[in-house]
Amino acid sequence: MKLLPLFISSLSVSLRSANALWPVPRNLEKGTSHLLLSPSFDIQVEGVAFSDVPGDLQGAIGRTKTRLWEDRLGRLVPGRGQSDLQASAAPGSLSLLTLSIKPPPGEGKGAKVPSITSEVLKDVSARDESYSLHVPADGAPARISANSSLGLLRGLGTFEQLWYWAEKGGEAGTGVVYMHEAPVVVKDDRPAYPYRGFMLDTARNFFPVPDIKRTLDAMSMVKMSQFHWHVVDSQSFPLEVPEFPELAQKGAYSEKEKYSTQDVQDIVKYAAERGIDVLMEIDIPGHTAILAESHPEHIACLHASPWSQYANEPPAGQLRLASAATADFTVALISAIASRLPGTLFSTGGDEINQNCYREDAQTQKDLKESGKTLEQALDGFTGRVHEAVRGRGKRVVVWEEMALEHQVGLANDTVVMVWISSKNAAKVAKKGFHVVHAPSDYFYLDCGAGEWIGNSAGTNSWCDPFKSWQKAYTFDPLASLTKDQASLVLGGQQLLWAEQSSPENLDSIVWPRAAVSAEIFWTGPRLPSGASRSVGEALPRLHDIRFRMVQRGVKAIALQPLWCALRPGQCDS
Amino acid sequence: MKLLPLFISSLSVSLRSANALWPVPRNLEKGTSHLLLSPSFDIQVEGVAFSDVPGDLQGAIGRTKTRLWEDRLGRLVPGRGQSDLQASAAPGSLSLLTLSIKPPPGEGKGAKVPSITSEVLKDVSARDESYSLHVPADGAPARISANSSLGLLRGLGTFEQLWYWAEKGGEAGTGVVYMHEAPVVVKDDRPAYPYRGFMLDTARNFFPVPDIKRTLDAMSMVKMSQFHWHVVDSQSFPLEVPEFPELAQKGAYSEKEKYSTQDVQDIVKYAAERGIDVLMEIDIPGHTAILAESHPEHIACLHASPWSQYANEPPAGQLRLASAATADFTVALISAIASRLPGTLFSTGGDEINQNCYREDAQTQKDLKESGKTLEQALDGFTGRVHEAVRGRGKRVVVWEEMALEHQVGLANDTVVMVWISSKNAAKVAKKGFHVVHAPSDYFYLDCGAGEWIGNSAGTNSWCDPFKSWQKAYTFDPLASLTKDQASLVLGGQQLLWAEQSSPENLDSIVWPRAAVSAEIFWTGPRLPSGASRSVGEALPRLHDIRFRMVQRGVKAIALQPLWCALRPGQCDS
Repeated sequence: MKLLPLFISSLSVSLRSANALWPVPRNLEKGTSHLLLSPSFDIQVEGVAFSDVPGDLQGAIGRTKTRLWEDRLGRLVPGRGQSDLQASAAPGSLSLLTLSIKPPPGEGKGAKVPSITSEVLKDVSARDESYSLHVPADGAPARISANSSLGLLRGLGTFEQLWYWAEKGGEAGTGVVYMHEAPVVVKDDRPAYPYRGFMLDTARNFFPVPDIKRTLDAMSMVKMSQFHWHVVDSQSFPLEVPEFPELAQKGAYSEKEKYSTQDVQDIVKYAAERGIDVLMEIDIPGHTAILAESHPEHIACLHASPWSQYANEPPAGQLRLASAATADFTVALISAIASRLPGTLFSTGGDEINQNCYREDAQTQKDLKESGKTLEQALDGFTGRVHEAVRGRGKRVVVWEEMALEHQVGLANDTVVMVWISSKNAAKVAKKGFHVVHAPSDYFYLDCGAGEWIGNSAGTNSWCDPFKSWQKAYTFDPLASLTKDQASLVLGGQQLLWAEQSSPENLDSIVWPRAAVSAEIFWTGPRLPSGASRSVGEALPRLHDIRFRMVQRGVKAIALQPLWCALRPGQCDS
Repeated sequence: MKLLPLFISSLSVSLRSANALWPVPRNLEKGTSHLLLSPSFDIQVEGVAFSDVPGDLQGAIGRTKTRLWEDRLGRLVPGRGQSDLQASAAPGSLSLLTLSIKPPPGEGKGAKVPSITSEVLKDVSARDESYSLHVPADGAPARISANSSLGLLRGLGTFEQLWYWAEKGGEAGTGVVYMHEAPVVVKDDRPAYPYRGFMLDTARNFFPVPDIKRTLDAMSMVKMSQFHWHVVDSQSFPLEVPEFPELAQKGAYSEKEKYSTQDVQDIVKYAAERGIDVLMEIDIPGHTAILAESHPEHIACLHASPWSQYANEPPAGQLRLASAATADFTVALISAIASRLPGTLFSTGGDEINQNCYREDAQTQKDLKESGKTLEQALDGFTGRVHEAVRGRGKRVVVWEEMALEHQVGLANDTVVMVWISSKNAAKVAKKGFHVVHAPSDYFYLDCGAGEWIGNSAGTNSWCDPFKSWQKAYTFDPLASLTKDQASLVLGGQQLLWAEQSSPENLDSIVWPRAAVSAEIFWTGPRLPSGASRSVGEALPRLHDIRFRMVQRGVKAIALQPLWCALRPGQCDS
């Protein structure tokens, strides 16, 4: 076993080996030695009895140990690693990975390692995800050190990606788990941006809890931190709210297509254990037609025709924001939902408010007249009350960009604004001093390019055509339109799945591995460990690798190229 | 129960109820009565003991009986058919479906009903798929009559699509199977075109046998007749050929990613039992680089760089068509493969032959010089020998359009030419008097629109962008560029999945329900039973229905719209 000079590792990256870490750590040194995983391999937390390790970290350790043996990912080289079997004839063998929390927990009774969940539930900018990792080439114990259990989880994720499987001499089922680039040294890896998200729309079509959990598993593989759950919309209201049982009763697609409060708690807990905070969105005042199934009194222009005059998509219907009763109802609803969520971000949406809808709604016009307010003033009042309720539950408010750019509503300084209409609008949001989450339709919308879904249209393209390929997304620059001073306003970004043309049937294949792209943009930042800029050419072999690993774990991520190309980096380049 | 006047049925179609048959029969009369399926429901073949019914028809009958109870498809209306439970309080109940072959089999010993398979294995233009169906509204026995077991199979497919499931009073798992448009009369339904296909490329990425079988199941649901199996290509050779074991041994992606001769027989049999003939393609002389893994002596310009100068996609490599040894090898290979296939169509491909490849290949230039032939003359000789071998196995030759339009090669009059480069080229092929199968990239390529897959290209679109939506495909007119006299040359058409960016993970979702579109174009022809032209507006609710039925049967077809829209035909139209 030999420790190789550090420049070897940079070389191995720049030569585009098929070896993968995704997202690539910000610091990385790798060797070229083989190292076996010992059948007696174990993971221990330094200075802490396993029974004193927080449950979610225990779970993460258990999952890592299982995956090392069960991933069974053959290296993406011709022969899938059979030649490694010879190379690893007399290798080192790793039997221990030590996890170390800095500072170490106090000795004796009452010593406590804080849980992953407790770190995840901090403000998005306050979470410590940093870790360091060292895997010696000689079989000496490997080590991950971090300031938090969340950091340890991130390190475990990196550690898992180092290992491959090679079948022994054609005996199906028997083989070795090994790495081929020992030693590995990752020093103080930490994300460039704290918000690395994925948004799922569960209202246009419903996604059962197991689909969401599988999505969270895949998100966690690439160190994502935020699940943006666009849970309800005009088409359905699958969210059970105990104070308003009638909403899901009348508004869910069916009895089975609902998220119970238990389901939500389950998803939030499952996500947190995997390093992911849940940001739920209740989009108001637009995108609310479905509320009329139980509360028609609160909805203007319900199912008005032609819908295109009253909404961006069918069916039309918006909350009567000028009505005091409707504002009361909305505040109560949002409060009921937000109070059950432990996270520190909550979105009230606010996109695509249609003016016609209110102009032609007699009730709204009456309300405005009686109060002497313009529509914008009423919107400001309505929004102010709702946001106050959210903030009263200890949460920062998240909104779509229109609330900051197109309306005259007061927003708190710590409001997080999602930029979706165009990536260029980030500059306008930053200029107003709000925090930015990049969710640009011109780079990150995963649904684009599948043709128009509106009925009776023969062969027209989707509104945000073309398809946003992984390469297109990968070229996104979070700071492109910002001044140096504004850079600190960027919290991160996310790819998004609007589900008009999606369902559990294509969830994995439309999302993965594409959504891993923003995970790397916002973790790794613009530069590779070698100092070179990130590039699609360098990224492709690594993206193949994480895709194949996802498939091994039951996430049906699509092929990016013929397998022939995936096994031969560079040979299918233009 | 009442028998309704026939104009009601036309109306119900033109009013775009969500009720579905796909492809819609060429003649159809429907009522509005409910009819339950009796728990004792059975299917019998008239005048034949069940033990004398051919095995594949027995299988088809068994599958229909199972599906009627197991499809459990709720009608696509708000409430998913709960209101039908009341309407069907005292309905008729169907306990018998009689299948009748005309002319009836002879009496007594030796009376034989020919199998589905025997009909499928006839020449594509000689198969009799016609059937008539009558389901009375009063519970009297229903009847399918046909001239062949294949016709009965098509009738069973239509019959299966009439039935829905409604859950009884919230008791999960208990409910009724019923139809709501009895009586149904289909008179002499038969396809407008005999070739209604789907092409799968299993070489760029591998698809295991169960994926192919599931695809065949879905194809059979929509009465497709032809599975075009693009089994090998430059990237891999997954086909085991006993006479040439080295090809798959060296050319398959792995030991597990192979089709054994048993697998092929299994697939051919499975397809035939479901009314589908298998047309296998061995694409020559281009698209053959993988042969060099075991036979480098037969391949010109192997892995030549840059590949774009020598092939349409990597890796480069073409058969040395001017070499007698290579022609001998090719004839032996094609003969070995073709002789194991019972079908009457076999494709030798012939697309995208690269001239540079041969121009710079010393061996080919030497061979040409020695024979005194031009490259085109050599191609003619090579092609002639291979085609003769195929025809010697009782098969018609199928080629891609270049062989008819871009080269000077002799083709037999009965050659079937697949038009792919542009739908407009069908006219040129017809002008030469060849039979046409429509496979146009501008309408029917299912892979288009997912971004460029070639590496190191940042954000460019796929070569055949945009995505070919189902609506675009549905507007395809098979006779658009043809004269009236040429119309009889059109055998049909197919949608195609080239698998550079596909894998088992997205097979169903990229193919279904889109590929059902050509099934209807080529079965139903241009007009609905009402006499109106087919239109995307009319088709959408029916396509939703067959999509949801596919999902119930385990085919992961994607959602076309939000469920809200699928339940409310017309309300999401532009």
